[in-house]
Amino acid sequence: MTKVRWGILGCGKISSDFTTVLNQFTDSVVTACAARSLDRSEAFAKKHGIANYYDSYDKLCEDPGVDVVYIGTIHPRHIDQIKSALKNRKHVLVEKPMTLNKTQALEVKTLVDQSDCFFLEGVWTRFFPATRYVRCLLDEGAIGQVQFVTTCIGYAFSPDVKRIWDRSLGGGGLLDIGIYGLQYVTMAFGVEAKIESIVASGKLTDGGVDAYGSITIHYEGSRFATVQYSCLAKMNERVSIVGTKGVIEIHPEGHIPTKVTLSRKEPDTADGSTTSSTEFLLPTDDASKYEFEGSTGFKYEIEAVNDYLRQNKREASEFSWDDSILLQDIMDQVRHQIGVVYPEEEKLVSF
Amino acid sequence: MTKVRWGILGCGKISSDFTTVLNQFTDSVVTACAARSLDRSEAFAKKHGIANYYDSYDKLCEDPGVDVVYIGTIHPRHIDQIKSALKNRKHVLVEKPMTLNKTQALEVKTLVDQSDCFFLEGVWTRFFPATRYVRCLLDEGAIGQVQFVTTCIGYAFSPDVKRIWDRSLGGGGLLDIGIYGLQYVTMAFGVEAKIESIVASGKLTDGGVDAYGSITIHYEGSRFATVQYSCLAKMNERVSIVGTKGVIEIHPEGHIPTKVTLSRKEPDTADGSTTSSTEFLLPTDDASKYEFEGSTGFKYEIEAVNDYLRQNKREASEFSWDDSILLQDIMDQVRHQIGVVYPEEEKLVSF
Repeated sequence: MTKVRWGILGCGKISSDFTTVLNQFTDSVVTACAARSLDRSEAFAKKHGIANYYDSYDKLCEDPGVDVVYIGTIHPRHIDQIKSALKNRKHVLVEKPMTLNKTQALEVKTLVDQSDCFFLEGVWTRFFPATRYVRCLLDEGAIGQVQFVTTCIGYAFSPDVKRIWDRSLGGGGLLDIGIYGLQYVTMAFGVEAKIESIVASGKLTDGGVDAYGSITIHYEGSRFATVQYSCLAKMNERVSIVGTKGVIEIHPEGHIPTKVTLSRKEPDTADGSTTSSTEFLLPTDDASKYEFEGSTGFKYEIEAVNDYLRQNKREASEFSWDDSILLQDIMDQVRHQIGVVYPEEEKLVSF
Repeated sequence: MTKVRWGILGCGKISSDFTTVLNQFTDSVVTACAARSLDRSEAFAKKHGIANYYDSYDKLCEDPGVDVVYIGTIHPRHIDQIKSALKNRKHVLVEKPMTLNKTQALEVKTLVDQSDCFFLEGVWTRFFPATRYVRCLLDEGAIGQVQFVTTCIGYAFSPDVKRIWDRSLGGGGLLDIGIYGLQYVTMAFGVEAKIESIVASGKLTDGGVDAYGSITIHYEGSRFATVQYSCLAKMNERVSIVGTKGVIEIHPEGHIPTKVTLSRKEPDTADGSTTSSTEFLLPTDDASKYEFEGSTGFKYEIEAVNDYLRQNKREASEFSWDDSILLQDIMDQVRHQIGVVYPEEEKLVSF
């Protein structure tokens, strides 16, 4: 079996965790990495045993020894890096959010449609066994029709976490963590469900990014969803999906889910309901190898991408283009209401 | 010890549950009840062993054998019934919400201030041992400064529950169930905390009442709270209070709380935190005697009222006038944004 050859674009913390997991696969190999400076990419290559390293993202994308590029940089940089990868006919796995806004996402979609490349926005939560189980429950109607979804996610980020607090780096809570709650909402209701309106409010920092936000999405049929997120408060990150016949609860921490509780109305039982919990433990590994909690869960996303590439697929069913575009659309509307505008958008008349 | 003599105004389901519990107290006695028809009040009196029964609320309020009136009717009727009780110098415990709006609440407050009477809006949840425990934790700073509160409450009410669906009966979810979530928010943040703004949206029925709603309350210091409620979906009714040093979770069903989990950041421990759960079981009794789940919990509210009356107090510290007025103020603003106007308010220019 030919190994899938990965190139790592960006040598930061998330790329390090991703590569640590990727290196455990026998059906793929990391052949190259790139950072803005050669020192940085060389150090990364040494740490992870990577043969080639570059001081230019374009050079990585041009490397004929690379089949698929993992983009682990901050999101304002994604658009140009995706273009460079696609231009060189590389498959792409890009960290969420794939772009800053829907306009950029649609531009990427056009390029992907014209190419022969696989593309995936790395909403890794969708690939976890616990999430797959929830999707099965929803698909088989275990809780009837979804009526309400609520999600919370919050971290008390330190003031020195620039990617959160700096507007020029695409800062703010929505695109970094709020997206995790939103993707559960669109998964539970389905991308086809009609959204009647979105109401959002939040708090801007002096620097113009959203420190926290609260989003209500009104769906047809008097159904609704709420997403709460904060960069100031450490929340117990929980997801509730309420249907006509029961409730699915995803326990903290929801974006790296390991436990799901299903409560179903059962009129025939003594107390009218049944409740059962199922655990899906993450792969264990030496925690000191990782920068972030739960990173061993990258396994599921990587596994899926390797499989899709082998099967010559262009899109993941777990998180499709419809999912990406819908999320970008919702996030645009939310940011518009809260008042977050990125430097790249200030010149856009359409925003 | 002289017994506290109670009169029951309204002979519906909630009054029945209340009276069933009240009758178990040895330091008080139910001396009279009143309904709109004599048949109804006589049947209620027989069921609960009450000596006197009336077909007029005024007659109950005029009865010299009554010290305190419990008002268990629908909320649009409360204002006139409270006035009748106060006119006759009776103490009052009135089911929540005490009135339809803040204007009515302030009118009542003026009358109470001029009287020598005890008055309490029956937000019974505040008197539960679990709620008292949460308040202690908050007061002693167990979770530091409160940053975020989120609450959900929802029932799939049948279309024949008129009190919910009929606007002329004060229908809609906010005043009936949303208030339970709101009172946790104002309890956790404290009535003195400055509210910067309130953003609410929901869905009106064809009859003009709120089928569901979502409320965001922005507090000073970039802190916020959300309240979600629905009359269409049975939610797991949970409350999360997130502070700088930890999280308090009140488990379902939050308005009749029996279990509280405290998670605290503990930098000195191995995993940086500790979690402990505490259960507060409700008094057990034959369920067939009650119309609603958890009604034995009326015990705590009744106990408090009997004690306050003995001590000649005029107000309950668990739920004060400041609490009542603040809740009414918030609910007015929420209804204004969602678009719920009651018939009694249509003539008011100020609303």
